[in-house]
Amino acid sequence: MAVYTQVRDDDLKAFLADYGLGTLVSFKGIAEGVENTNYFVVTSDGRFILTLYEERVDRHDLPFFLGLLEHLSDNGITCPVPLKSKSGNAVTELAGRAAAIVTFLEGFCVHHPAPTHCRAVGETLAQLHLAGETYDGIRANALGVTGWRPLFDKFSDRADQIAPGLTNVIKDELAWLESQWPDTLPQGIIHADLFPDNVFFLNDALSGLIDFYFACNDAFALDVAICINAWCFDDKHVFSPAHCAALLSGYQAVRKLSNAERAALPTLCRGAAMRFLLTRAYDWLNTKDDALVRPHDPRDYLKRLQFHQTVNDAAGYGLDGAA
Amino acid sequence: MAVYTQVRDDDLKAFLADYGLGTLVSFKGIAEGVENTNYFVVTSDGRFILTLYEERVDRHDLPFFLGLLEHLSDNGITCPVPLKSKSGNAVTELAGRAAAIVTFLEGFCVHHPAPTHCRAVGETLAQLHLAGETYDGIRANALGVTGWRPLFDKFSDRADQIAPGLTNVIKDELAWLESQWPDTLPQGIIHADLFPDNVFFLNDALSGLIDFYFACNDAFALDVAICINAWCFDDKHVFSPAHCAALLSGYQAVRKLSNAERAALPTLCRGAAMRFLLTRAYDWLNTKDDALVRPHDPRDYLKRLQFHQTVNDAAGYGLDGAA
Repeated sequence: MAVYTQVRDDDLKAFLADYGLGTLVSFKGIAEGVENTNYFVVTSDGRFILTLYEERVDRHDLPFFLGLLEHLSDNGITCPVPLKSKSGNAVTELAGRAAAIVTFLEGFCVHHPAPTHCRAVGETLAQLHLAGETYDGIRANALGVTGWRPLFDKFSDRADQIAPGLTNVIKDELAWLESQWPDTLPQGIIHADLFPDNVFFLNDALSGLIDFYFACNDAFALDVAICINAWCFDDKHVFSPAHCAALLSGYQAVRKLSNAERAALPTLCRGAAMRFLLTRAYDWLNTKDDALVRPHDPRDYLKRLQFHQTVNDAAGYGLDGAA
Repeated sequence: MAVYTQVRDDDLKAFLADYGLGTLVSFKGIAEGVENTNYFVVTSDGRFILTLYEERVDRHDLPFFLGLLEHLSDNGITCPVPLKSKSGNAVTELAGRAAAIVTFLEGFCVHHPAPTHCRAVGETLAQLHLAGETYDGIRANALGVTGWRPLFDKFSDRADQIAPGLTNVIKDELAWLESQWPDTLPQGIIHADLFPDNVFFLNDALSGLIDFYFACNDAFALDVAICINAWCFDDKHVFSPAHCAALLSGYQAVRKLSNAERAALPTLCRGAAMRFLLTRAYDWLNTKDDALVRPHDPRDYLKRLQFHQTVNDAAGYGLDGAA
């Protein structure tokens, strides 16, 4: 969310020449992405996004991420497409960092999604799941069910600072999730972070997906559960049946959920809420009071979790029990 | 240098409609400007920069700054041009902040300027001084000679943390500057912050000036002295006669310096070095160790000051004594 690494014009010119991307017209650091430095770059050939990968990103994951973007784009998903240097590399070096440059996507995030946006997100999520089936990269989900307890252990002694009793809520829920977690659902490539921030719309039509840096192999239906958490609650964190019905109907128009996936949906939604509750809680407790960027409030996901705990079956999300 | 205020898509759409700027295609927060939030905005009508003025900017100064951009642009200076809302206002409100939107300038900053760049900067600076003579806005220079002592008083007890003996260096120099400062030089609108960051080039030709938020009324030759400090020292802070000769020759091709201005140049250069030494020292001492953005090193301007202290007359900057 900041420009950590400054790029000099002469270094950028040499970089662009190596990628054969025309002559430089403009470049500006942008506040986008998780923890990398991003520049918006205009050349005589077009508009691009340049990313410098900061130290917290594992360089070994980059071929997975960039290969995935290329694969998805080749298979009908609108997402940033990595360009390749003259020697055929998507990842090279710039300003002492691993660097990649991708095509610029038109469109912008919708902060107040309507059910029509949710329907489009559901459709595109299912298309992504199908398109990913032929991708041969593999990456474990570091923030899947086995990653939650180690993350919680890092702040369990301070969780009550966020909300009274939170330590016990998480403790009980983790035990329940670990015992109930479904491990035989259909798996494949999932986006794992398809929040409104990461979906562009243009004239109310979905125009592309960005930020694949949590993409990994896990249950498709977990991705659906993440989207339910991300798209189907209002500003007060109250569940919206209309948004959820639209999301699931869009998804199923492209890829039908199996009976097992439907049955698991309440559990997966609780797990998805737990995943974001944990990372937000960790960031909340580890952000200095005077930081420029305030972390997201973890309690938003406590509220979601508490909603999902009241849901007994897929009907609670507006689905029939049977496929 | 950060996005302090988040803009929602629906608020931005309403804002753009009020300015009649077409339909929204894309917007991204950019890391530019002093202490405001800036967005790069693409609409069906073109590209723009949206600025939200954060609390530290005095709202009463905005008509001066925006009127100046409009005036300079009308008088041949390439700079961002403020757009006006349907009710004729350059400044309106967005996301709870005073907001303005200006045209996007092509080009980018040159981090390693050559003498040819300095010549272009000198020419354009002189054009700016002439173009500003018909502008009727007035703004005092808060960082002119009378502003330095109050600023120093805020950290004089800690200045030696930056460099041993710095407190006394500044104390002596301030006394000298206050006694020697010329107050009868030709005055007018000056940019007052024309660093390489604020000058765009395209194909090595100067394509525009940005960031007028220090612009004010003061001596034209002080602006020249600021540019000598900003453009005519190398990475090791060693004076480059070739860069300075090019800058001054560019300037004088458009506006001849008077004998009094030439004679005052060493003093003005010392004052300009002092102004940036003081603000950088203040920021250096008041930035937390874990801040995302590291402040500029004030000692760069101590080195410049020490160089200027060795210069006796305009010949030290490559100028004849007489016009």
